[in-house]
Amino acid sequence: MIPDKMIQILKCEGVVAVVTQGDHGPHLVNTWNSYIHVTEDERLLIPVGGMVCTESNLAINNSVLLTLGSREVEGVHGAGAGFLIKGTASFVKTGERFSLMKARFPWARATLEITILSVAQTL
Amino acid sequence: MIPDKMIQILKCEGVVAVVTQGDHGPHLVNTWNSYIHVTEDERLLIPVGGMVCTESNLAINNSVLLTLGSREVEGVHGAGAGFLIKGTASFVKTGERFSLMKARFPWARATLEITILSVAQTL
Repeated sequence: MIPDKMIQILKCEGVVAVVTQGDHGPHLVNTWNSYIHVTEDERLLIPVGGMVCTESNLAINNSVLLTLGSREVEGVHGAGAGFLIKGTASFVKTGERFSLMKARFPWARATLEITILSVAQTL
Repeated sequence: MIPDKMIQILKCEGVVAVVTQGDHGPHLVNTWNSYIHVTEDERLLIPVGGMVCTESNLAINNSVLLTLGSREVEGVHGAGAGFLIKGTASFVKTGERFSLMKARFPWARATLEITILSVAQTL
């Protein structure tokens, strides 16, 4: 499901937006392209430092939106490509997928594991 | 209200996330750091290509969240700085602020004008 161009983007650096639904409106946090680990079964793993509000939002509504992009990758309109990812997400605090991220990011208190429902190229 | 570090980030390229509240959840679109014009009265102007859903969401609820960042700017935890901006937004289709963006981005059908309510450094 993950296009090659998205993998190309993940090899460049950039800001990733992670959006959840809160009681009083959307909640928006960030990570970096380079922090995302793509598993063999195409889940996205993101190390969690804070994200306290994201965690409590996901406990009520597990839908998540992500965008990522890079000007260094050729997109729909020339230089610059980006993707919108819709999925569901959960916080993982034990097991292999937590250990994997904890080894790379010692400050991680959890791994945010995203199951992709759709991927659309927006740029 | 706009910190110098945010201005520094806007001089580097990167993906900007723009989030509005929709009926069925948050809506997330993107622009590039380099597309943002900061006015003398500290409004953010963004050229609008599509953003049809963003426009209809704002007609009901004019709150907007933005994030922007760059790994090239020194942040809170080392290389990489980012900001979360809360504000209100409107679509401008006539007048000086539309013409200004239209001149730079001939494809623009409108200017998204953001009034900043708060700016917080997140990274």
